Amino acid sequence: MIKTITGKHDFVESLRGKKATFMLSLSNTKTANIEGITQAGIPGMIHLTPTLDSEFLCTGEVRSLENIAETPKGVPTPALITRGVHLLSPYGRIELLDLGLEVTPKLSYFKIHHFDIKPSDNIAKGANINAQELFEKGVKFGQSYQCKDEYIILGESVPSGTTTAMATALGLGYKVDNCFSSSFKKVPNNVREKTLKLALSNIKNKNDIFDVLSKVSDNMLIFNAGLILGLNNQTPLILAGGTQMASLLLVVNKILQLMGGSIETSNLALCTTKWVAKDKNSDIETLLNLSKFSINSYYVDFDFSLTQHPALKLYDEGEAKEGVGAGGALMYAVLNGISKETITKKVEAFLE
Amino acid sequence: MIKTITGKHDFVESLRGKKATFMLSLSNTKTANIEGITQAGIPGMIHLTPTLDSEFLCTGEVRSLENIAETPKGVPTPALITRGVHLLSPYGRIELLDLGLEVTPKLSYFKIHHFDIKPSDNIAKGANINAQELFEKGVKFGQSYQCKDEYIILGESVPSGTTTAMATALGLGYKVDNCFSSSFKKVPNNVREKTLKLALSNIKNKNDIFDVLSKVSDNMLIFNAGLILGLNNQTPLILAGGTQMASLLLVVNKILQLMGGSIETSNLALCTTKWVAKDKNSDIETLLNLSKFSINSYYVDFDFSLTQHPALKLYDEGEAKEGVGAGGALMYAVLNGISKETITKKVEAFLE
Repeated sequence: MIKTITGKHDFVESLRGKKATFMLSLSNTKTANIEGITQAGIPGMIHLTPTLDSEFLCTGEVRSLENIAETPKGVPTPALITRGVHLLSPYGRIELLDLGLEVTPKLSYFKIHHFDIKPSDNIAKGANINAQELFEKGVKFGQSYQCKDEYIILGESVPSGTTTAMATALGLGYKVDNCFSSSFKKVPNNVREKTLKLALSNIKNKNDIFDVLSKVSDNMLIFNAGLILGLNNQTPLILAGGTQMASLLLVVNKILQLMGGSIETSNLALCTTKWVAKDKNSDIETLLNLSKFSINSYYVDFDFSLTQHPALKLYDEGEAKEGVGAGGALMYAVLNGISKETITKKVEAFLE
Repeated sequence: MIKTITGKHDFVESLRGKKATFMLSLSNTKTANIEGITQAGIPGMIHLTPTLDSEFLCTGEVRSLENIAETPKGVPTPALITRGVHLLSPYGRIELLDLGLEVTPKLSYFKIHHFDIKPSDNIAKGANINAQELFEKGVKFGQSYQCKDEYIILGESVPSGTTTAMATALGLGYKVDNCFSSSFKKVPNNVREKTLKLALSNIKNKNDIFDVLSKVSDNMLIFNAGLILGLNNQTPLILAGGTQMASLLLVVNKILQLMGGSIETSNLALCTTKWVAKDKNSDIETLLNLSKFSINSYYVDFDFSLTQHPALKLYDEGEAKEGVGAGGALMYAVLNGISKETITKKVEAFLE
């Protein structure tokens, strides 16, 4: 039920039965305020999505708003999947990375790592990130982090994150047209293309990686690039996401090129959903093959074919595909013996 | 669903819900090349059975050959049961003991413990094992081994292992006629008896235990006798197997007699299948009662009565009974709440 995109089956098989820390990176970019750029949340309140996602993941409740984040067409957040798996086969623990949130999640007892990071600005006008400092914060965190479980699943909730991920890859000089996914079925190319064009026009020096990142990227990508290099293959790490996580690897690759360094990646993998892996409007495999290093990558052969619920059926129709680590969560479920039917029923129960 | 053969129910009950490390001991003896002596594998390629079993257990794929090890009558390897349980209620981890393999399993990430041990020779001509050195390797491994889960399930894949186990028990002076099981329904007594007679004729000094073992035994029995003594009851250990594992206890018993020592066995148990426990051609209970120490032993009341699959039905008819730790795997499934029906369906799915 777990399929290989690149690399071999062995890495993911070796994690079967093991407990993972679920780490959720949260950040806001004002890029998400551009009308029509993202479907990940409630119009006018898109900035609350990572806050609500993390509240729901940890407690089953959304506290900073009455209703759980839904898209205008009523596609519920993939946090339903991530939370559902936690109820069926609990993660060892959940930890949150506050990588620049407008609103802090209302949670007690759960570990929220704070790094004094502000939400980033709209990339159309320049993201205005201190990229080098942010990257170094990630490195430091990765170097000092002690995993209490056997591996880490790293997810993200960053509204309009696929747009900033695409801007990042393009800004760094990768050829990635038609590679990036979106929370929409019909990618809003006009809005996105206009935003990307404006973003890229802000870049002054294409060879200064950190200058590029400071203009067109987002906090999640920059911090987590540092995190990966800081962890340095010491703890097995699953990047739970689609094209955003693939773009994160491209950032790592570019920084390694800059430093003339290399990284061992035997303990690093990516796992996404079938909705991303089979998406006709994007191409994660191409993104994964652009880096100098190779990694194992997988998708979980899960869809909502067993449900009749119209809101969930929208996933199978291409609206919403990934996020809040849904791909990694599904992997965790499969590795712990949970069936497609059981997951489906648990997710359905949230919508009753 | 777990029945007691000797001892009390409490030990196995105390393991309910706990995670186990599944440790699979793998070795080849050229005894398996004697025509008609074993049903555990593909004729002419019997030596690949432990390699294929371990590949399949870890990854669900057989890599060193196209098709999964099947006996000539089409009885599929009990690794299907062991793997099926891993998919339903995963072991904490799988580790492999290379106790003399012709072909190393093609696996990445999985821990394969190597000890520089060669396959042993045909016991009819003398197994040619450095028994004392091998035993000491087992002791050393047991003394230094740190279990990362709460107990160990120790299985084996050694083609013709019941024949070498019987030779071992006879060679050590135990009265064990009609006690040993076989992968055949109709035990090939002519071939086996001839082999045993030749094997026993090689023994020069019946009182020199290590000389006896070096002539008539196999690597799995000798190494694991050391492992049991090295662990010294510190970690709960389930011997997952039938008459071979019972013979292993007889080796331990004999070595203790030689050393004038004793062993605490409160954390040591054996668990096998119903097919072994109810086998009319063998008698595991008698074997278990021959040692000076007593241990808890169990079998799992599981059969293939719920399937229509003809290849699996052969188990209930007496062809193939145990191996690759199937008895211990079934115990693990029961202790983690997995039903007979669920196990049956999972095993059936491999054969579709």
